[in-house]
Amino acid sequence: MDDNLSALTAPASFDAIRKLLADLPKFDQTSAECAQEHDRNLTKPPGALGRLEEVVEWLAGWQHQHPPRLERCAIVIFAANHGITDHPVSAFPSDVTAQMVANFAQGGAAINQLAKSVGARLSIVDAGVDQPTKDFSQQPAMTEAEFCKAFKLGWHAVSDQDDLLAVGEMGIGNTTAAAAICHGLFGGTAQDWTGPGTGVTGQMLTAKINLVDQAVRLHQDLKNDPLELFAALGGKELAAIAGAVLSARVNDVPVLLDGYITTASIAPLCAITTDFSNHCWPGHRSAEPAHATILSKLKLQPPLLDLSMRLGEGSGAALSLAILQAAVSCHNNMASFASAGVSNKTKGAL
Amino acid sequence: MDDNLSALTAPASFDAIRKLLADLPKFDQTSAECAQEHDRNLTKPPGALGRLEEVVEWLAGWQHQHPPRLERCAIVIFAANHGITDHPVSAFPSDVTAQMVANFAQGGAAINQLAKSVGARLSIVDAGVDQPTKDFSQQPAMTEAEFCKAFKLGWHAVSDQDDLLAVGEMGIGNTTAAAAICHGLFGGTAQDWTGPGTGVTGQMLTAKINLVDQAVRLHQDLKNDPLELFAALGGKELAAIAGAVLSARVNDVPVLLDGYITTASIAPLCAITTDFSNHCWPGHRSAEPAHATILSKLKLQPPLLDLSMRLGEGSGAALSLAILQAAVSCHNNMASFASAGVSNKTKGAL
Repeated sequence: MDDNLSALTAPASFDAIRKLLADLPKFDQTSAECAQEHDRNLTKPPGALGRLEEVVEWLAGWQHQHPPRLERCAIVIFAANHGITDHPVSAFPSDVTAQMVANFAQGGAAINQLAKSVGARLSIVDAGVDQPTKDFSQQPAMTEAEFCKAFKLGWHAVSDQDDLLAVGEMGIGNTTAAAAICHGLFGGTAQDWTGPGTGVTGQMLTAKINLVDQAVRLHQDLKNDPLELFAALGGKELAAIAGAVLSARVNDVPVLLDGYITTASIAPLCAITTDFSNHCWPGHRSAEPAHATILSKLKLQPPLLDLSMRLGEGSGAALSLAILQAAVSCHNNMASFASAGVSNKTKGAL
Repeated sequence: MDDNLSALTAPASFDAIRKLLADLPKFDQTSAECAQEHDRNLTKPPGALGRLEEVVEWLAGWQHQHPPRLERCAIVIFAANHGITDHPVSAFPSDVTAQMVANFAQGGAAINQLAKSVGARLSIVDAGVDQPTKDFSQQPAMTEAEFCKAFKLGWHAVSDQDDLLAVGEMGIGNTTAAAAICHGLFGGTAQDWTGPGTGVTGQMLTAKINLVDQAVRLHQDLKNDPLELFAALGGKELAAIAGAVLSARVNDVPVLLDGYITTASIAPLCAITTDFSNHCWPGHRSAEPAHATILSKLKLQPPLLDLSMRLGEGSGAALSLAILQAAVSCHNNMASFASAGVSNKTKGAL
């Protein structure tokens, strides 16, 4: 068997996705407790490694093993184009999606350097660069079949041999799709969910907001069905990300999310099953304003990094992988008080 | 010449230190502008790498070169003991300083794993593990000669061949010394500057605060001379850190600070020359409450990381080096719009 393929069959309909979401693997409390117990003996004051200790426990629980392992980490970028770019919603023309995919292949993008710096395998999945979605301000972006085809591409991008999945995206116009999904799912105003993306301001930003508003009104009958809404307002790379993150859950692979778009991609699944996001950790707090709002709606942990980045491509997820690697390396390789002959704390202290 | 030694003579008196501080190398605006110019051509929206772009510019300016380089990075931990541990100021006995130095030598501590994960050279400088300072609640911690001896050890821990210096410390009792220095220099109350350190709470924390208060009152005549005050209230590893950071400035080596103690170690030099801290970037926001206060007093940049760590050992500085490496790798290795054939932004955008 090719170990790059999940052994499990990809869901091929909305109903099959709903069925999987109804019976998800749970956090393994025993492995997490092993991590806690092991941590107490390491040569440091208890709690002194802060969030590094938290992520190790989280990794152990979702990998269903102790010690946790980060030897085989996958960064996957999902790329696609968007019919909504018939309108001026981005600072860049939609040709840039294909040009950037070529740039990824040639090793020239930021994510190539970041993947190298953390020693992770980088792959690019073309979820529809040459087959853009329909303009969702006029009609549904995708049919159920188109959505499920993209979802399946994501599903098969994850292997049960991976220790971690970091997801990223490339798709000119996809902050507009993310904004529409979030506005459709969570309400509020279109303005609450629509930001500058690649750098849209002033009248262009106002037009982008109006377009999101118009699209959500058009598809408002679908508001009670998160998957129907996702297909109507989403993009193919967003559907693929959702497929990859569900596949990761089923294969005991914890996930690092990137920024606003990757988080919006799992929002419809979280709307169906609240705890769906628990095996995901946000790598980086995006400069895109609505990212903070969606993180809070999905009850995700605070991102590990906050470096004012707003690039996408999986850049925030990849960079935060360096923090996870450091955390696991400390946890797995530090000496214990006993083995190093270091005196433990005095009485009366924490 | 041994390239681990700075070519410049170490200052051997307070006056010699003051003289160096009066004539410090400045930020190289030309190299920083080269970095800005180069950045504008990289295949990403302008500003999309956020703080990664800022640190690259900062590195270029303080390394006095473009492109900036991070091939040879030094992490140096300065260790010493403190007479103040005659009082119960720490959760751990002072024997732990020597035991942890042995743990560093054997590769068992957190910093060993972190140094390995960023591929940096780790060295330990014994600035007085077996020669603790005097109990500064009763008398000055160090004479000028003792201070300058420790300062010199730090000075010589930096090479002009290094691309970056990350500083750390180990010394049971040294959050008490850091608190006393800050309270002496910046005023406020002893409570403003005194925190749990390795994990002191309740009555022990109250006693620690009272001791800091008492010590600063005892040496209040020295308040107008930051170096005299530093020698009276400091520790040998803190003096060594100050020496290393001054040596780094003179040798065009940018510095990553760790947490509260390393930052307090440069505070007396900043009190003499306000822009002394400019070649330093805080790696991590410590969970020690007074760290935020000292960062603001010294007008330092916000730390790159905020992971609730409070370990010392250079752990926060070492971990943040991963961010700098990623930033430099993106800056130096990404393709340009022209070389990758990627269309640049459309009109009307940022």
